[in-house]
Amino acid sequence: MTDLAPQTRSRVLSSLRTQRIETASWAYGNSGTRFKVFAQQGVPRDPYEKVADAATVHRFTGVAPTVALHIPWDRVDDYADLARHAKDLGVTLGTINANVFQDDDYKLGSVTNADPAVRRKATDHLLECVDVMDATGSRDLKLWFSDGTNYPGQDDVRTRQDRLAEALAETYARLTGDQRMLLEYKLFEPAFYMTDVPDWGTAYLHCVQLGERAQVVIDTGHHAPGTNIEFIVAMLLRAGRLGGFDFNSRFYADDDLMVGAADPFQLFRIMHEIVLADELDKGIAFMLDQCHNIEPKIPAVIRSVMNVQEATAKALLVDHTALRAAQQAGDVLEANAALMDAYHTDVRPLLRDLRADLGLDPDPIAAYRGSGYFERIREERAVGQAAGWGA
Amino acid sequence: MTDLAPQTRSRVLSSLRTQRIETASWAYGNSGTRFKVFAQQGVPRDPYEKVADAATVHRFTGVAPTVALHIPWDRVDDYADLARHAKDLGVTLGTINANVFQDDDYKLGSVTNADPAVRRKATDHLLECVDVMDATGSRDLKLWFSDGTNYPGQDDVRTRQDRLAEALAETYARLTGDQRMLLEYKLFEPAFYMTDVPDWGTAYLHCVQLGERAQVVIDTGHHAPGTNIEFIVAMLLRAGRLGGFDFNSRFYADDDLMVGAADPFQLFRIMHEIVLADELDKGIAFMLDQCHNIEPKIPAVIRSVMNVQEATAKALLVDHTALRAAQQAGDVLEANAALMDAYHTDVRPLLRDLRADLGLDPDPIAAYRGSGYFERIREERAVGQAAGWGA
Amino acid sequence: MTDLAPQTRSRVLSSLRTQRIETASWAYGNSGTRFKVFAQQGVPRDPYEKVADAATVHRFTGVAPTVALHIPWDRVDDYADLARHAKDLGVTLGTINANVFQDDDYKLGSVTNADPAVRRKATDHLLECVDVMDATGSRDLKLWFSDGTNYPGQDDVRTRQDRLAEALAETYARLTGDQRMLLEYKLFEPAFYMTDVPDWGTAYLHCVQLGERAQVVIDTGHHAPGTNIEFIVAMLLRAGRLGGFDFNSRFYADDDLMVGAADPFQLFRIMHEIVLADELDKGIAFMLDQCHNIEPKIPAVIRSVMNVQEATAKALLVDHTALRAAQQAGDVLEANAALMDAYHTDVRPLLRDLRADLGLDPDPIAAYRGSGYFERIREERAVGQAAGWGA
Amino acid sequence: MTDLAPQTRSRVLSSLRTQRIETASWAYGNSGTRFKVFAQQGVPRDPYEKVADAATVHRFTGVAPTVALHIPWDRVDDYADLARHAKDLGVTLGTINANVFQDDDYKLGSVTNADPAVRRKATDHLLECVDVMDATGSRDLKLWFSDGTNYPGQDDVRTRQDRLAEALAETYARLTGDQRMLLEYKLFEPAFYMTDVPDWGTAYLHCVQLGERAQVVIDTGHHAPGTNIEFIVAMLLRAGRLGGFDFNSRFYADDDLMVGAADPFQLFRIMHEIVLADELDKGIAFMLDQCHNIEPKIPAVIRSVMNVQEATAKALLVDHTALRAAQQAGDVLEANAALMDAYHTDVRPLLRDLRADLGLDPDPIAAYRGSGYFERIREERAVGQAAGWGA
Repeated sequence: MTDLAPQTRSRVLSSLRTQRIETASWAYGNSGTRFKVFAQQGVPRDPYEKVADAATVHRFTGVAPTVALHIPWDRVDDYADLARHAKDLGVTLGTINANVFQDDDYKLGSVTNADPAVRRKATDHLLECVDVMDATGSRDLKLWFSDGTNYPGQDDVRTRQDRLAEALAETYARLTGDQRMLLEYKLFEPAFYMTDVPDWGTAYLHCVQLGERAQVVIDTGHHAPGTNIEFIVAMLLRAGRLGGFDFNSRFYADDDLMVGAADPFQLFRIMHEIVLADELDKGIAFMLDQCHNIEPKIPAVIRSVMNVQEATAKALLVDHTALRAAQQAGDVLEANAALMDAYHTDVRPLLRDLRADLGLDPDPIAAYRGSGYFERIREERAVGQAAGWGA
Repeated sequence: MTDLAPQTRSRVLSSLRTQRIETASWAYGNSGTRFKVFAQQGVPRDPYEKVADAATVHRFTGVAPTVALHIPWDRVDDYADLARHAKDLGVTLGTINANVFQDDDYKLGSVTNADPAVRRKATDHLLECVDVMDATGSRDLKLWFSDGTNYPGQDDVRTRQDRLAEALAETYARLTGDQRMLLEYKLFEPAFYMTDVPDWGTAYLHCVQLGERAQVVIDTGHHAPGTNIEFIVAMLLRAGRLGGFDFNSRFYADDDLMVGAADPFQLFRIMHEIVLADELDKGIAFMLDQCHNIEPKIPAVIRSVMNVQEATAKALLVDHTALRAAQQAGDVLEANAALMDAYHTDVRPLLRDLRADLGLDPDPIAAYRGSGYFERIREERAVGQAAGWGA
Repeated sequence: MTDLAPQTRSRVLSSLRTQRIETASWAYGNSGTRFKVFAQQGVPRDPYEKVADAATVHRFTGVAPTVALHIPWDRVDDYADLARHAKDLGVTLGTINANVFQDDDYKLGSVTNADPAVRRKATDHLLECVDVMDATGSRDLKLWFSDGTNYPGQDDVRTRQDRLAEALAETYARLTGDQRMLLEYKLFEPAFYMTDVPDWGTAYLHCVQLGERAQVVIDTGHHAPGTNIEFIVAMLLRAGRLGGFDFNSRFYADDDLMVGAADPFQLFRIMHEIVLADELDKGIAFMLDQCHNIEPKIPAVIRSVMNVQEATAKALLVDHTALRAAQQAGDVLEANAALMDAYHTDVRPLLRDLRADLGLDPDPIAAYRGSGYFERIREERAVGQAAGWGA
Repeated sequence: MTDLAPQTRSRVLSSLRTQRIETASWAYGNSGTRFKVFAQQGVPRDPYEKVADAATVHRFTGVAPTVALHIPWDRVDDYADLARHAKDLGVTLGTINANVFQDDDYKLGSVTNADPAVRRKATDHLLECVDVMDATGSRDLKLWFSDGTNYPGQDDVRTRQDRLAEALAETYARLTGDQRMLLEYKLFEPAFYMTDVPDWGTAYLHCVQLGERAQVVIDTGHHAPGTNIEFIVAMLLRAGRLGGFDFNSRFYADDDLMVGAADPFQLFRIMHEIVLADELDKGIAFMLDQCHNIEPKIPAVIRSVMNVQEATAKALLVDHTALRAAQQAGDVLEANAALMDAYHTDVRPLLRDLRADLGLDPDPIAAYRGSGYFERIREERAVGQAAGWGA
């Protein structure tokens, strides 16, 4: 990094200083596969403890000041109290994630169910989530529907889209102020034949019909093999419909590994599109949605935040002038090299400097490990029921 | 089929009688992979001979009365004369396929090229294709762009979309009467990093911006692994944007095998969505786009037409009343069974009856083989340059 | 079927009469995804009730006389008593499936774990399963290892193979008489970066090193997209190493849907290789391994057994003489047609005849539904803890 | 790199100094897709000029001293003369690649063809390639077969394996001295239903039957989506059967892009397995097999060589002691971090130092561009027929 021009260095540091990454409450709880949920030590037992863990991540990284909630997993009696608790710990409550996939009634779908009573129940939950947003001051309602079918013929594709559109419209109408609806898509799982919102095209189509505050959210693990995710990023940016990301990484399906762990170059290419469009700090929600099934959760989240930072720093280093000149000249190798030069740069010294500037330990993982936080929660939370997806 | 109710039988036969499948002129010429084009005997040497082969397929199947052209592969001096030739042989000229991928100028793209002169040339070709349509009386202009990039950074994703939109708008404005623009998407090949129109979402977005006569065309070989194609069919039907199909089948990528050869159940599910929406004869273009690299071409096209017919017949046999009742009741197994019952039915006797009704031989392949047509063209076309993708 | 030659008909019926399909005890219990296990009514509460359900499937299909057990899910104090119970109901106990993936100790692997104590525990469980085989008289020990890693670098690939080889060797040495070891492979899930036995090559390599009674088992849902499964069937048949199948179907990953539901043509092609090699009744274990997450379990298993029967019947109808003649002549279309002719045949009337011959109701699903069995178990099993993967 | 310990630095540089990467003669000729071969300027017209281009790559990189030939593309009257020509330019002739896919006779297969005369012809070509090896002094015969089928039923899977085994055995028997046979596998293309050697399991099985000098070669673009290639590397290393690599990169299928361009992290993981097993200089052939369809060929090869060097340098930087300690302790995050630390290091300064030590320009691309070589060949080769796959 010695040869980084002072102006470049200053510009990059300035952007990195404003970056915000949201962590998810459920990432601190137990998770697993259909085969087994391996229990870990020190896992939070309620939303207050999840918020405390999220605050710990922010304390050591400095760029994760909000935590997303999942309703009903994070249902509390008094959301204002939870918000105060967060504030006391230096963070705020973020995106509200609706959950309409864990009730027996939803076996054949929630808002797309053939049974109008089930649809009513599901939509009521979505509306309840907006109530929660009102209480927490959250801007974004994130909707992921597990709805779909397992067998050809099981239900009618177009009718289910009609039902989906109806529930979305009712929920959208309930939003006020600058509240937004983020619609997520996913190719498969848990539905194995047809998913009602399987791709960005479907999410986009519904968002356009709803209105400007309906935006698409990209979960980086929700695509068919071979899908060019940064292309979708660029398309949605161009259409003004990119609401946010659920970051994680995958080798096969929705593996929900730490972002940047499977294909760091892809993460860089995604952030490059964001930087190119100058949208790093314009309202896109950068969220983590991961499952730390076998690795300790808090340091895994810290590592993930750092991975996003590193990808962003590299993206910020791309020489746009050189890039555009090579593109314009049709020089394939030089255009590619302009990108790769930035990617191959080791930005870790730069990020250590950033942290020092922010009054943080340059090595967040080591600082967390030395802080005694884990030893404390392991003891405090040794009794009681650890939080998990079913909790 | 003995237990098929007379009313059902009559309804199905009536629908099958109106079915129209368009064959492609280039399917009769030589084709291959990047590794080798294996020459075959009797291959047509010019568009007139291609039309003759298409007419032969229609003569034995009775449901393939149009043939699609590819410009410049099928460029002739006098399109009216070619149209007359077709008419004399009992067929008509169909969809005009533009080709902006075989000129050295298009190495880095056609309508999305960074060089405005190349874009102009490409768009001019699209306009020329509309001229051809005027001359041939074709309704549809089919656009597939090989445009894309091979390396990250090679060109700017959003800028290329802007250029694409501009070329499409100029071409769309040139359409008159009931002429339509069919926009095709493809995941990859020949571009290997990013394709400018890789998925239905992108094609749909552009079509909506263009106007009602811009429609999406689905090539069944152009998707990522695991993509549910019939879902896309249903989505585009619901949105009023399904312009047509390029039928073929694939095990891996864009293999361009005979439709129905790789996954006949998928073809049935696609036709089921068409029948469900009552769109079998409402304007959707059902086209074949295949490469018969190793099998004789004319009987391969005949077999493909028959495969579409069989899938359609099975789709027409689905008991919609039983299907909807099971769906409404949430009876997963019965709903699936309603579909499978139709799929498992052997419809070949029914199609033999249809052909007999139409005055055709019930076995088109055998009839073709016994007709002496191949022996004749093998001799007639023994000298000269066989047509191929480069011709 | 009216034109089926009497000799052909007799030959096919004779083969179908000897067909044996093994159902899995765990298919009758509750199952689901990581998102939710939807409880069903009438689900068995212990191995005895699972065996009763399996016997019910056999009662209505006539070709499912054995039931596979999963240890520890089906652990009982007295296996001889369970075997008697099975016999009383008209079935016998089949393959023993080891389970070394549901203990907290196995978080980082079982037989491949870096910790020798965990490896010892896992291998001891495998040996215990052979003890169970001795008690039940089961021929086959089926081994599937969830072992693998989630992150690059997490553990050493080759060292893990050494540990695997050691555990397999110790277990293999414990087998006596005609007991066999069936080694299963799986691309991914629950491990998301590297699975220790991900493909047939790995399973084959270990089996060859172990000895002749070590055989590969193919789960039809355990492959990468685009894998030609019938090719693997043929390769293992040629090498004398195909021990059996875990049948199910999938659109995306290891979806564990009813076999034949996603791609019935693929199932037919698999059975065609078996019939071609004359291995239908030579010792290959044909097992179902499915999860009926949303559909009622017993009729789903019945339907699956019927699907395998139908695919087998079609495979038996392939005219091998015509097929080989076309292959020898290099006639691509005729060779393919020889296969497709059999596939397109509606074999359901033939199977109805078979069942009538066997003294069964020609329609097993309807017969089951009319039998009152479900109503009885729904009531009997209304109280108590339903069996599931964790039970 | 300032904090790299002198000992580490010295060790890494020493290994990098001995690294050898073989380039392919055909990479310098024109190539393309089935849609279009875009001609480039300065493309060699015969094997002598291809060798000259390869020598140019070696001149600027210092680690590419051999060039692979493809027969018949590189057939010459006097191989000794071609070898002398190479030697004069500072390189030697490397692997001989057989080509049995470009003759009309091979439409339905070469060594697996149903016609014994075609098989004889194909095997004779393989034997001829060993003759060439004798003349050139090449160690390795690389065999890739495009053989396979496009349609189910087209030919018999097991019979084709028998024919394959026979041809391999005859060719293997012809090898003398330390000559080796490298058997390559590929999932698909140009065969679209079944490929006769589709995966490493098949190649391994044949190699084991042939003998120790039969080894598997891994083309990094020849796998199903989601395949863990470094796992296969480790398996073949453990089995003593890894003969070499055909390096390239891909996003979708066999895209044949510059190695390291699509997933540089994967390339690093592959080299990490090589380094872990201490096999960097023990006989594995590291070859490039790429198609530079749209980018200039010589700089693209130089870039590819540099990409392999960078991945190797990073792999050499992995702290094996820390890695194994974390693995042994079951510390998932630290084990992963040990790998990532090396990957994130910017090794370009180190490689510049290496080149300076070798008396080379630290920036091979710039040096090539400044050398005037391209301007010279563009002029010299302006007339005549450029070499390509069909030449």
